Formats: sequence, structure tokens, C-alpha cells
Amino acid sequence: LITTLHTKRTELLPAVLGSTEETTTGVIRLRAMEKEGSLRIPVIAVNDAKSKNMFDNYYGTGESALHGILRATNVLLPGKNFVIIGYGHCGRGVAAFARGFGCHTIVCDVDPVAALQAHYDGHRVMTAGEAAATGDIFLTVTGCKDVLNAGHFKRMKDGAVLANAGHFNVEINIPELEGLAKRKRTVRPNVQEYELADGRRIYLLGEGRLVNLAAAEGHPSEVMDLSFSLQALAAEYIAKHKLEARVHRIPTDVDENVARLKLQALGIKIDALTDAQEKYLAGWSEGT
Amino acid sequence: LITTLHTKRTELLPAVLGSTEETTTGVIRLRAMEKEGSLRIPVIAVNDAKSKNMFDNYYGTGESALHGILRATNVLLPGKNFVIIGYGHCGRGVAAFARGFGCHTIVCDVDPVAALQAHYDGHRVMTAGEAAATGDIFLTVTGCKDVLNAGHFKRMKDGAVLANAGHFNVEINIPELEGLAKRKRTVRPNVQEYELADGRRIYLLGEGRLVNLAAAEGHPSEVMDLSFSLQALAAEYIAKHKLEARVHRIPTDVDENVARLKLQALGIKIDALTDAQEKYLAGWSEGT
Amino acid sequence: LITTLHTKRTELLPAVLGSTEETTTGVIRLRAMEKEGSLRIPVIAVNDAKSKNMFDNYYGTGESALHGILRATNVLLPGKNFVIIGYGHCGRGVAAFARGFGCHTIVCDVDPVAALQAHYDGHRVMTAGEAAATGDIFLTVTGCKDVLNAGHFKRMKDGAVLANAGHFNVEINIPELEGLAKRKRTVRPNVQEYELADGRRIYLLGEGRLVNLAAAEGHPSEVMDLSFSLQALAAEYIAKHKLEARVHRIPTDVDENVARLKLQALGIKIDALTDAQEKYLAGWSEGT
Amino acid sequence: LITTLHTKRTELLPAVLGSTEETTTGVIRLRAMEKEGSLRIPVIAVNDAKSKNMFDNYYGTGESALHGILRATNVLLPGKNFVIIGYGHCGRGVAAFARGFGCHTIVCDVDPVAALQAHYDGHRVMTAGEAAATGDIFLTVTGCKDVLNAGHFKRMKDGAVLANAGHFNVEINIPELEGLAKRKRTVRPNVQEYELADGRRIYLLGEGRLVNLAAAEGHPSEVMDLSFSLQALAAEYIAKHKLEARVHRIPTDVDENVARLKLQALGIKIDALTDAQEKYLAGWSEGT
Repeated sequence: LITTLHTKRTELLPAVLGSTEETTTGVIRLRAMEKEGSLRIPVIAVNDAKSKNMFDNYYGTGESALHGILRATNVLLPGKNFVIIGYGHCGRGVAAFARGFGCHTIVCDVDPVAALQAHYDGHRVMTAGEAAATGDIFLTVTGCKDVLNAGHFKRMKDGAVLANAGHFNVEINIPELEGLAKRKRTVRPNVQEYELADGRRIYLLGEGRLVNLAAAEGHPSEVMDLSFSLQALAAEYIAKHKLEARVHRIPTDVDENVARLKLQALGIKIDALTDAQEKYLAGWSEGT
Repeated sequence: LITTLHTKRTELLPAVLGSTEETTTGVIRLRAMEKEGSLRIPVIAVNDAKSKNMFDNYYGTGESALHGILRATNVLLPGKNFVIIGYGHCGRGVAAFARGFGCHTIVCDVDPVAALQAHYDGHRVMTAGEAAATGDIFLTVTGCKDVLNAGHFKRMKDGAVLANAGHFNVEINIPELEGLAKRKRTVRPNVQEYELADGRRIYLLGEGRLVNLAAAEGHPSEVMDLSFSLQALAAEYIAKHKLEARVHRIPTDVDENVARLKLQALGIKIDALTDAQEKYLAGWSEGT
Repeated sequence: LITTLHTKRTELLPAVLGSTEETTTGVIRLRAMEKEGSLRIPVIAVNDAKSKNMFDNYYGTGESALHGILRATNVLLPGKNFVIIGYGHCGRGVAAFARGFGCHTIVCDVDPVAALQAHYDGHRVMTAGEAAATGDIFLTVTGCKDVLNAGHFKRMKDGAVLANAGHFNVEINIPELEGLAKRKRTVRPNVQEYELADGRRIYLLGEGRLVNLAAAEGHPSEVMDLSFSLQALAAEYIAKHKLEARVHRIPTDVDENVARLKLQALGIKIDALTDAQEKYLAGWSEGT
Repeated sequence: LITTLHTKRTELLPAVLGSTEETTTGVIRLRAMEKEGSLRIPVIAVNDAKSKNMFDNYYGTGESALHGILRATNVLLPGKNFVIIGYGHCGRGVAAFARGFGCHTIVCDVDPVAALQAHYDGHRVMTAGEAAATGDIFLTVTGCKDVLNAGHFKRMKDGAVLANAGHFNVEINIPELEGLAKRKRTVRPNVQEYELADGRRIYLLGEGRLVNLAAAEGHPSEVMDLSFSLQALAAEYIAKHKLEARVHRIPTDVDENVARLKLQALGIKIDALTDAQEKYLAGWSEGT
């Protein structure tokens, strides 16, 4: 929508107060637009809210990506070498839940801090090239393109399963997979079998589109409610304030307010700081 | 040291190029100093580095706090109601590892986002007042004072164990515990038994000081090396640049460089983005 | 089949060499028949094989019951109070995986050893009556009848979800649920909403039949292969040996052979004892 | 004691009513004695009680072995390749808790069923020879001798740590380690460094004796109480019954009684079967 506004329907831009952006990839693109000076409306990056990325991305994608894989394949997860490519909020959720199911988790990431965290979280860390030869199930959650390509497909075991829960259907290079295959057939709904020249078979789920949407029902509404509340309150904030045409962080009090409302809905009570504690945290002279 | 410089030895300040700060509490205090206009040297907040707080705090405190509790008490962790007060990096590490040991974990936090995360991570969330009546073991990791006090001690079960892995020995209000006790004795090294008027006994570990230092050996050197490398490289950065007298974030490339060196030392290889991928991530026109 | 043979088609019994029994409940019933002197053919209790109950029951039911619940409801599992009634092989599998998903697990069992194990495994243990008021999702895996009944339904929260992965559709007392309901409707495939007189709604999955079969696809074939191999080899064993008309354990070497074949299929190599080690284990004079 | 009675003090045997045996290895040896006809007193195998081996062995050894390793070495467990040799009750406990700490767990066992279970539990399974080249920490929990020997030491990485939580100090072949070493020194209490000819260093904890006893304080008393209660009630049972001179299983009601008493001490209530349920479980005609 924002892209269309800035390319094909620029005459509408003056009437637009602003926008909010829900996804990691959307925010990356908006920042790219801002950087090159193309962005002409204010946008609040809802995705960067603490009440969003730790919840919708981690728990929502974590659960629904596994749900999609189970539903498409009915594989036995325990004991599988499960390769997670991308260890951001989404990847960390998937990796934690996959391990909770008895998977042998392997993580690949280009970010050294994320890779180190995965290592200490108990996942094996290696290049996607090494993982290609070991994995039973591969899930891309990167927001980048061409993450699994011909170089990887050539090293995979017969029966390898490929899925994407990142952004678009470009994370797995499907044209290259098609190029390597001598035959292709649908073996179950949302499961395409690609038979390579040497007889090995690779199974692509949901045509490489988001497996939680293609093969299951997407994130549960119970976690999307956090994100949608943030969207609604961010829209209200835009309407009430005059913001510059750039990408804005969501105000902290809006962010915390959403978490507070959700706790209330769940019937969970938490403590508040006392005045003495507030003062202690704001000071620097007390203590050893 | 920084406090002393700013209070008792101000004549030395002009000769100081800058400083680095390792701990969460230290950074909070420096920001308080900066806010009130007292800070007269540049300080790099090493604690805020991604290579620091996700590692030293989460894995280091997570492991060493449990190690300290085991060493002080030799209790059986499986099945214990383990109350973690504070769900920052340190608290999340302790909670994850305690659950890995079969503890029934309970989390208290004043921050609604942290509390909500704890809930979805599988920990029960409640006020410290409610937790007081349920817990077998209590660990404070807040950076705040007076987190457990007379109001809580009065509700605790006979045999409750109290420990602190936060900052100073003020997280547990020891004077109030002393005030309630009719008798006090050392039952094991680092274990003080407080007998209350009604006969209930509360056990305080390491006099309420950091239990990982008091009753074990602190963080393993293997995780402190990340923090110390950051300190060294931050000091070099201060020496090479002229920085303003305020709290500075650690430069991202220094941060990532430390993670990269550690991966190398561990023999772990990761992928790099291709040029096409870099370009894709920087753009906004490709994709659906 | 065995029941029919012993009741309606007894004329066929003389021609039957024997039988094998796959399920926990089936074996319990066969032992009941044996005890009362009714069993007239030999039966090998495949269910009691180590290669069966630790695998098919634990991993198979563990995964597929959660799969069924996800598929029927698309609920968010993290943070849910998930009540598992029955902590045998099936219940332990479900409980472990549910916790791996961030559920707050609660276990009920009438067996004190199982209940104690659940406690130390990190699950809260209580009576089903107590759990009724706390749970968000209830799963019966007991092999017994009337495990959840009107007494429990009356205490449940609005929105409680009920499923069964035990044996028949008698674990949840559906007639009593029907009796309490003033209205009933299908809200999603395999999800029946029962509205009680006071407006609370209880959701029954798959009409109380096995939720992994009703709402998903049952156990993955990858784990059933162990059970079916045991069945095949047990049938061969019956054909080659003349067995008495009672319930027989599966021979240990058949049991281990199946595990060995599966390891081979997975490409996993293990060590063998050396002669010296065999002798050591068979002796009692070496060592302190 | 039993060995001494049967070898050096046979004149005392007629006066002995019977005995109870606490450990896995002890029971194996007593069964070996029974098999060769040497056993001359009745012995109740307390180790085989459900209230013993699932608790003392799994949770007790699981926790205390890790405690011993932490205390001896202060290593960082997260991220370590932790090799568990032996996947019985003890090994499964250690493996589960080590993974809870973020270790990369590897399991070796000669029993195919145990090996397969380890695989599905999410641990990598391989021969000890393969694991030798990969492991950072090795723990033997087998009850067998010579489990790690020169063949393994030669393949280990510089810095490998060896510990035993199985039975005696014969699980690790220390004479062969001594034979390979050109130098040996104590680097910390309970940590012996063996320097091999090529400069690699191997660290042996607690001289290869049980690491939980050598370097920590053994099992917590809270879990030993189950075993000691079983011993006491088994002794009473021997005194009240005239038993044959062989290895006896502990009576089920004694076993369950201990679990029941422990639940009571923990304040945990469980349900009891109704008469209708008892009847249902004992029958075979009800249900589909």
C-alpha cells in the first residue's frame, strides 16, 4: 500500500496523515526509503514495539510455523535435524519450540551476535552449506532472499523438507530448485515433491510462501491482538500529533499500555515500584 | 571509582579521558548522573552491548546463581517453587535454567512487557506478595532495593530460602528480616537461619550479597571474556576518539567484532551476505 | 476383534494361533480376561515392548495430541494452563512437549508414583477438582472412564477446551456435559461449543474421541513403524512357538531387534560391549 | 558387606535374616551371584522400586553430577558439547538437566532401545569413539568398566573434561590415561590435569570417583529420603516374612506407600479411583 502510494498514486499522498507498519521486512524497506529520501509520510514502526516483536514474532511465528509443518507433512518432529535459518525474534521462537519437541536444532545466521546466542542457547551453529548436508527439515526466517539455493539443494539428503516462515517466497530460491528437478508432483496438499536428476527428492511446503499461512491458519488471534492494539493506538497517536515524514519508534507508554491491558485481560497482577524505589533507581549515591 | 572521582577526587577529572561501565546498575546510575548534569567524563556503556547483556548477564548469571544456591544449600531443585524477582537479562537466564532443572518457576516484575513475556515463556507471573506464600526459593535480580521485605517475610513458608543475584545487598531488606527474627544462626557456610517469633525459619544465603560471588565463584571466565574484550576495545575507542562527557553506546562494529572473535575461538563458522542480498536488504522495490 | 471372537464367533477360536495387542487399554482388558479365565488364545502384549511404549505412546501421542489441538482450535499454546490427566507414557509425552511450547502444565494422576514424578519433572500436581478451576485446556490420557465429569465442568472457566487422547470417548463424560448445557453448536470443524446455564462456554474437541485421530492424522507413520514391526515379528514368533492361552510379554530379543533396525535406518551407530565388559557385568568380585 | 559375608565371614550367614540393596550395580552383582547359585540370603532390590530409580537416580544423580562438575571446574555449561555415556535412569537425568542448561548433549549407549530413546529425546547419539573427538565434557554413568579408554583419550580435544557418576572409579580407565600422560598436576581441588605427549591436556575430576560425592555433597537428602524409607520398609518386610535366598522385587504396596507419604509431606493431594472406575479398569466388556 505504501509502495503503491509512493509510485502509482502519488496524488493521494498529501491527504495521508501517516501510516503504521506491522512487519520486520516492511520496516526495513521503509528505512531504506527514508534513507534514500523517498519517504513522504510519517510511519510508526509498530514492529519495533516490545509488545510486538517479542510476542507476535517469537511466540506467534514459533507456534504457527511448527503447526504449518505438522499439518502439511505429519512428520515426527522428535529426533529430526531441524535447521532454522535466521535467529531473529521469529527464528528464536521456532528454535525454542522445535527443541521442546525433541528436535536436534541447527541454527544459521549471518549476524555474529545472533549466531553466538544460538550456540549458547544449545543449538548447533554452522553455515547453511554445512547444514544442507545434515538437515531433515529446513525453515527460512530471515527477511532476505536466496537463502537456500542450488548450492544447498545439491547437498541435501533424500527426503529433505523445505519451508519458509520469513517474508516472501524468495527466501528459498524456487526457480533454482525447479531448474534442478527432473520431475515434480504434489504428494499431499501443500507438499510439492521435486525429484532431482540423481533420484533424491526434496519436499517444498506451501510453494515457499509463509508456511504458517499456507498450510495452517497463521498466528493465533490471541497474539495478534497485541499487534492490532498497537496499530490502533499508533494510528490514534498519528492523528493527535503532527509527525515528520520519517520512520518513528512507537512511544514507550503506548507500548507498555498494550502489555498492561493484556495482563489485565489474562487476570495477571503485577507489583508497582514504591516511591522510595523510584527514587533509588533515579539516584546514584545510595549503596556500596 | 567514578563516584569517588566526582565527589572526593574531582581534581583528577581533567586528566581522565573517559571510562567504561560493565554493569546494569552502574549504567542506570551514570544515566542518572548525566540527567542531573553531574557527569563530567565520557563513559561507554559496555553493559548495553549485545555481546554483553545477552551473554554475561543471561548465561553467566543464569548458571552461576544456581551454582551458588546449590553450593550453599545442596537442596533438590526439581519440584521446588522457585521465585525469580526481576525478569531482565539476568532473571530470564536464571528462570530458563531453573525450569531446565525441573523447578516450578514463578516470576515477578514491575515492567508489564517483561511480565507478559515471562507468562508466555511458561513461568507463572504474580505479585511478590502472592509469591511470598508459595515460594520455596526466592532470588532477587532487580537492581532495585527493598524488593523482599517484612511484608513478604511474614507470609513465607517455614524453610524458605532467600538469595540475591541482582546488584547490592539491599534487594532483600535484611534489617527488616533481623527485626522479625528472635534467633539467628549459621547452619552451613553462607546459610544464615532466621527463626521468626512463630517458629518459622527463613534461610538467607551469602548475607544477601550476590550469591554467585558469595557462595560460588562468580561468572565463569569463559563468559566474562566477552565483557572484558568489550571493555578493552571500548577503552581503545575512547583513546582514539574525542567523546563528549555523557553516556555513550558502544559502537556496533566493536560489539559485533567481539562476537566474531568469540565464534572464531569456538571454531564456529557462519555465512556472510552476498552482494545481491545486501542490495536486496537495502532496497524496497523487489518482492510482492 | 478379540472380544468378538470370545463372544459372538467362538466357533473360530480353535483355528486361531494367537494374537498381538497394540494398545495399553487392550492389554489391560486382556489381562482382565486372563484373570477371570476367559482368555482362550495366546496374545503377545506388543504394547509392553520397550520399543513401543516409550516411542509410539510418548513421542507419537505427545506430538499428535498437540497437533490435533492446534489444528482444531488454532489457540496460542504459550501461557496456557494445560491440564494433563494421566501421567503414563502418553501423558508424559504430552506434558513434556506442552511445556516445550511454553504452557503452564498441570498434571493429575491417581498413581502416587506417577504424581510424584510429575511434580519433580516440573509440572504442578493437583486433583482434577482443583485443576478444573484453573485449566484453560484439558487433555485426558488415562485409559479410564468418567475422568472429567459434571463435578469438574461446573468449576471450569468460560472458554475451557476439553480433549481426549486416551482410549475411547468415555474419558470425558459427554452425557453429563450435554446435561449441563442449555445450547450446543459447532464453532469450527471438530469444535463443539457447550453453553452452560450461567453462560459459560466449554469447548469439546472431536466429540471426545481421540483428538489426534479426530482432528489431525494420528501418529506419524515414522513412529508407528516401530509398533508395526513389533506386531509383525510377534506374529512370526507366535507362528513358530506353541504358546499357552494367556497374555505374553514380547521376547526381549525381538524388542531390541526392532530398536536396532530403526537405528540402522536412521544411520545411527552405537557401541557394543567388549567381552571383558560382558564378563565384568556378569561378575561380582571385581571393583571396590 | 554382602560380598564380605559370602567370602570372608560365611559363619555369620545363618544369623542374617536378609538384606536390601540400594544401587543399580549392587543389584546387577546380586543377580549374578543368584545366577551362579552363590547367594545365600534373601535380598530386596530396593533399587528396582519405582519410588527409587525414577527419583534418586534420575533427579538425584542428574542434579548432583552437574553440581559436582560446576563446583570442580566453574566451566560455562551453555554451549558445551556434553557427552553422557550411559542412558539409564541416571544418564537420562543428567542429559535432561544438561540440556536445560544449554549444553549440546551427545549420548552413547550400547542398548539399542536406550540409544533410540536418546535420539528422540533430542540428544545426538553416536559411538563413544565418534563422541571422543567432539566432546568438551564427558560423563560416564554406565555401571560398566573401561568405558573411556586410551582409544578415546587419543582422539580428545585439548581441554576435555572427564567425570564419572556411574559406579566405581573403573568407568574411566585411569591407568591408561596415566600411561599416555607425560605430566600430571592438580590445577584446582578435584581437577587433575594430564598432559599428553603432543601437548593436549585432559582434565580428570575427582580421580574418576563419583563426581557428585568427590566434588559436591552427593544427592540431596530430600531425594535420598525416598530411598531410605524404602530400605527401612523393606527391612521390616524381610523381618515379617520368610523369604527365599534370592533377589526379590520390592512389594508394590511398599513402593507406592513411600510415594504416597512423600506427596503428603509435600502437601500434594491426588485423586483416587471411584468404585465404578476400578470396576471399569478390571473389566473388558464396556466401551467401543
